[in-house]
Amino acid sequence: MAGNSFGTIFKITTWGESHGRAVGAVVDGCPAGLALSVEEVQRELDRRRPGQSFISTQRKEEDRVEILSGTFDGVTTGTPISMLVWNKDAKSSAYDALRDRPRPGHADWPYLARYGIRDHRGGGRASARETVGRVAAGAVAKRLLAVEGISIVGYVLELGGVRADLPDGEDPWCLREAAERNPVRCPDPLAAEEMVRAIEAARAAGDSLGGIAEIVAVGVPPGLGEPVFDKLDGDLARALMGIGAVKAVEIGAGVEAARMRGSEMNDPILPGQEGPRFETNNVGGILGGISTGAPIICRIAVKPTPSISRPQRTVDLSTGEAVEIDIRGRHDPSIPPRIVPVAEAMVALVLADHFLRRKVARV
Amino acid sequence: MAGNSFGTIFKITTWGESHGRAVGAVVDGCPAGLALSVEEVQRELDRRRPGQSFISTQRKEEDRVEILSGTFDGVTTGTPISMLVWNKDAKSSAYDALRDRPRPGHADWPYLARYGIRDHRGGGRASARETVGRVAAGAVAKRLLAVEGISIVGYVLELGGVRADLPDGEDPWCLREAAERNPVRCPDPLAAEEMVRAIEAARAAGDSLGGIAEIVAVGVPPGLGEPVFDKLDGDLARALMGIGAVKAVEIGAGVEAARMRGSEMNDPILPGQEGPRFETNNVGGILGGISTGAPIICRIAVKPTPSISRPQRTVDLSTGEAVEIDIRGRHDPSIPPRIVPVAEAMVALVLADHFLRRKVARV
Amino acid sequence: MAGNSFGTIFKITTWGESHGRAVGAVVDGCPAGLALSVEEVQRELDRRRPGQSFISTQRKEEDRVEILSGTFDGVTTGTPISMLVWNKDAKSSAYDALRDRPRPGHADWPYLARYGIRDHRGGGRASARETVGRVAAGAVAKRLLAVEGISIVGYVLELGGVRADLPDGEDPWCLREAAERNPVRCPDPLAAEEMVRAIEAARAAGDSLGGIAEIVAVGVPPGLGEPVFDKLDGDLARALMGIGAVKAVEIGAGVEAARMRGSEMNDPILPGQEGPRFETNNVGGILGGISTGAPIICRIAVKPTPSISRPQRTVDLSTGEAVEIDIRGRHDPSIPPRIVPVAEAMVALVLADHFLRRKVARV
Amino acid sequence: MAGNSFGTIFKITTWGESHGRAVGAVVDGCPAGLALSVEEVQRELDRRRPGQSFISTQRKEEDRVEILSGTFDGVTTGTPISMLVWNKDAKSSAYDALRDRPRPGHADWPYLARYGIRDHRGGGRASARETVGRVAAGAVAKRLLAVEGISIVGYVLELGGVRADLPDGEDPWCLREAAERNPVRCPDPLAAEEMVRAIEAARAAGDSLGGIAEIVAVGVPPGLGEPVFDKLDGDLARALMGIGAVKAVEIGAGVEAARMRGSEMNDPILPGQEGPRFETNNVGGILGGISTGAPIICRIAVKPTPSISRPQRTVDLSTGEAVEIDIRGRHDPSIPPRIVPVAEAMVALVLADHFLRRKVARV
Repeated sequence: MAGNSFGTIFKITTWGESHGRAVGAVVDGCPAGLALSVEEVQRELDRRRPGQSFISTQRKEEDRVEILSGTFDGVTTGTPISMLVWNKDAKSSAYDALRDRPRPGHADWPYLARYGIRDHRGGGRASARETVGRVAAGAVAKRLLAVEGISIVGYVLELGGVRADLPDGEDPWCLREAAERNPVRCPDPLAAEEMVRAIEAARAAGDSLGGIAEIVAVGVPPGLGEPVFDKLDGDLARALMGIGAVKAVEIGAGVEAARMRGSEMNDPILPGQEGPRFETNNVGGILGGISTGAPIICRIAVKPTPSISRPQRTVDLSTGEAVEIDIRGRHDPSIPPRIVPVAEAMVALVLADHFLRRKVARV
Repeated sequence: MAGNSFGTIFKITTWGESHGRAVGAVVDGCPAGLALSVEEVQRELDRRRPGQSFISTQRKEEDRVEILSGTFDGVTTGTPISMLVWNKDAKSSAYDALRDRPRPGHADWPYLARYGIRDHRGGGRASARETVGRVAAGAVAKRLLAVEGISIVGYVLELGGVRADLPDGEDPWCLREAAERNPVRCPDPLAAEEMVRAIEAARAAGDSLGGIAEIVAVGVPPGLGEPVFDKLDGDLARALMGIGAVKAVEIGAGVEAARMRGSEMNDPILPGQEGPRFETNNVGGILGGISTGAPIICRIAVKPTPSISRPQRTVDLSTGEAVEIDIRGRHDPSIPPRIVPVAEAMVALVLADHFLRRKVARV
Repeated sequence: MAGNSFGTIFKITTWGESHGRAVGAVVDGCPAGLALSVEEVQRELDRRRPGQSFISTQRKEEDRVEILSGTFDGVTTGTPISMLVWNKDAKSSAYDALRDRPRPGHADWPYLARYGIRDHRGGGRASARETVGRVAAGAVAKRLLAVEGISIVGYVLELGGVRADLPDGEDPWCLREAAERNPVRCPDPLAAEEMVRAIEAARAAGDSLGGIAEIVAVGVPPGLGEPVFDKLDGDLARALMGIGAVKAVEIGAGVEAARMRGSEMNDPILPGQEGPRFETNNVGGILGGISTGAPIICRIAVKPTPSISRPQRTVDLSTGEAVEIDIRGRHDPSIPPRIVPVAEAMVALVLADHFLRRKVARV
Repeated sequence: MAGNSFGTIFKITTWGESHGRAVGAVVDGCPAGLALSVEEVQRELDRRRPGQSFISTQRKEEDRVEILSGTFDGVTTGTPISMLVWNKDAKSSAYDALRDRPRPGHADWPYLARYGIRDHRGGGRASARETVGRVAAGAVAKRLLAVEGISIVGYVLELGGVRADLPDGEDPWCLREAAERNPVRCPDPLAAEEMVRAIEAARAAGDSLGGIAEIVAVGVPPGLGEPVFDKLDGDLARALMGIGAVKAVEIGAGVEAARMRGSEMNDPILPGQEGPRFETNNVGGILGGISTGAPIICRIAVKPTPSISRPQRTVDLSTGEAVEIDIRGRHDPSIPPRIVPVAEAMVALVLADHFLRRKVARV
């Protein structure tokens, strides 16, 4: 109810603030009998970790995860899996000057309007650091899905106006591999170089860039998703729009669907060895909120990092006067590369939940 | 859990199939003491009713709503409000030929894959007729919001490639009034005429058109929305993506945010009489998942109606063979005009719920 | 959240007031593929119907149930099952004099304290008439359980101080059959006669009697129940205590367990053909909140009907003065016989839900 | 869904096993602005701590709680409050011999039947050690209630057949104070001495004793509780029956209500300064599932500790053969004294949740 839990059967609760003592997640509802090692969770955390390359924030966090409950001899027992990461390199003093001065593009003012109190250090709960819990929990979801042959792949499609040129019908895993080879996580190496240059230029100008990431789930069987309010696309939209900085979510053809005709948009149905298959996939693998068996395709539009080093106009809440602020701290000049593992985690959480929900759909 | 409920404190459950006996909704959690008349609910249903103009489906349904519980002397009592609309003009025989032949672009195949059984008449539960319950429940939510000075306005922004030209900063209520004057619900009368012509041409060609609708909520106080998974934008995305045919949801600048720089995107904060206000509204009234006090702006991309009168390729599930089908029935050649009241209802449901949730955010 | 829904996967929502237009229930989450006829639901409703014998209220209600959605060709489709019963013989005028005078033992005052408004006619939502929806929904749950070999049997164990003498280890179905042969639903025919006499005497004295009912579930496999807050016994306790007039819930040895020693209470475990079995069943089939495979045994203590024909002291809320009231209306002098089908329904709802929940407990 | 969360608005999730690394709780939904110190939480944990007297288990756990998130400058911020207690004195080897031999009266067999795997060390998740999280979370709930003038008091009423003799109408706080002065938490000092002797005798005989505890909530305003499934008494019954070893829950007159006549049971309503008040309180402060304003009175029957030092019969699951086991470990010979703070915590959690829920019951 207070919004820190996600999922129904496979359910997570995250907790922790940017500059508090620790951040963590509790996974409740992971089926018993799943082999799970701390290394698998760590691997995903390493992909979102700050300081992994020269283009990301220089905050130093090892982000070593500890699993405190829910497994026995390396296997899940059906009880809650509690995971924790200690905060180490928090420089709270950088935020002192901003205590009464809400930063443009940040959640400072809305939090205060809502709660009347706010942990202003590093964005508190609204910080991207909160996603540590999501990624840790998502790693458990990915593990569950992997056993069922479902995998989730994400990469950057566009950044600072530079668009990747991806071959049609490319295997998502090849895209992923190519993407993980460069710091912007773009599968097109030429575009990736251009994106890096764009980021460096933006940083030099004290500015920041937005971009678009694509997340694809392959191996998803038909029949996942609940009509009419817990549709698979509805739940994905919520999961992805709920990541800080995301301003649009598209499924399949997305916005372009609005400009197509029915005769173009409708994916013809063909006979297949394991039931019907689809000639095209304009719907992105979802019809009526339920998976069709084709790959699930989502895209998110990510706004530029709100923390920029230029002076910005805001209000001092203690005096009510207009002021200019300079944001110090250490920030990513462009978020999409680090948002990819977070978005993958959210897609994994949605699919793991709906995978389990499908088990009770028939007698 | 099975997806027919929506909301947490202000919670609805809808039920009913296209060609079943009736469709309806139960609203649980509407506060006691709200004046509510059946006429107010009826007014919203009339806006989504089939056959309201020459461009919508010719299925004839009066859609008279009955309130069966939850009010006493015209005031809500805090108990569940059960509302029901009988189905009348259902022509089920039109669907007999499609029993084993899933229609492209429809949920036929995924429902079957999920449940192993499917009410094939008119799309069953996946039919747009299900939205009767949403609109009825949304009318109650609108009533609750109206008391608090919050109103929701929707209109068609683009249809069949024709884009409305709307004056910057126009009062949403003027847009709404202009929109309700033409059958495509577009506030720009010239564009509206062009849209109507595009629909007629598409219908003549046995085809259909998509479009974009915009929903704006005004009067929303700051502080609505729950971090981190029940964000206001996340919940809106889910609510809107969960409407049939929607393939993308944008908040504020939406997809365009990906191409902006931080210095353009960040809305400067200015001193205001009732707390901070924002010079621009690129974020669409939401920061960190919580309302800022500025208008909430959402857009949805709607795919073209999947039911077209051209032959389409599919599979006969009883034989496994490829076949061509012709869809008869009575269908809207373009959905956006009738999706507007449904989208407004969903936005109202999200806001009503978060309005109540904010009441318990502070001691 | 507002308390009119019950269950997690197998979830119901009931609605309707005693003297409103109708009462009903929506079942959401019943698996697809279950054969379900309206007659089965009707049969259960007939067991709780008023006027079924000379010892129950003389309100005349046929209570014919209609199934409005969720089935197709007599089989559930996985979509919500909406059921409705019209109210017919409501004599609202009998309640006019009580509008401002809360009846002792009834929910009149607490409803008013909570909502500030109250449908005073016949108890409104707090009326036992609300249980029509529970019994209808419970009939669907019973159907699902029957397919799995689980059945639920209830009967009156004690009434007005008269205790049934039941043979140890008697087959619950024999008890049920014997119980359904008399109006007090007691399997011991001699005790039943005495109970009837006690009821007639109490009625003659303008008074009412309480009693104890026992509900047994047989065929329940081991492994149902969720640690640590959704334990099977916890959920049963909530389900049963939530029936109007119930003041105590016991599982297995119940209150007597407090007076036993560990060496008496512990049920020895024996080798069995299908895993361990228990020599005794003091725990009533539940250990650690999870079913053991032995029969589930619950007992409820039911207070005497609060509506009695003697003058009672209360307050006139319009004047604040002490007054005496006489309750007219038509009431059961003792509730346990008619509470049995309601309690069975609640136990069925809990078990159906946990039966489905167990399906997702392991990979 | 997997049962490790409790509450709706004020919601907790507990995690951790008896012999795992730690146990803890996350409180989500505590309103912002509540002063909360770690000392207050610690005080409640000290009341349930093992080894606090000669009659409780000799496991040595300091049970120092850490608050990892959700407060800032000693005040809650509206974000999740994560609390953790490390496990220290776990002697797992004592349980090795029991790996394949389910203990009578314990959850060993049902857990295995459910999950196919089980952390056998010290009962794993089914251990009473899990209640650390409940008590810590309950301390936060008590703090919230205290601000509103609601307090919760628990004590032992009966133990090993010895019944306390309590003066009618005694102030609950005096009872509590008297109870905290002796190791059995019984407000009647003479009965307390007898109870201690009974425990010592039972321990000498290798046996254990059950008992009855009473929990009273005072200062509860009228209007708390949701009809019809989330009634205050229903939720209390679930909360209390869900504590390990509890086999019966009574509200007010409890089981005795079944033997009363309507004219005795009905509490007459009298004029009062702040609305109606009740001459007697047979209903235990709840009518129709909603608080009346009178004290809430609950009683629980607690079975004798299942871990006894006598040989007991069970099955070796690896061989399928009947065996005798001796349970070593360190155990309380009687649970009621230490169950009191746990039961108080559960009652506090229910009331805190319903207190917040009442805030949204009216416009």
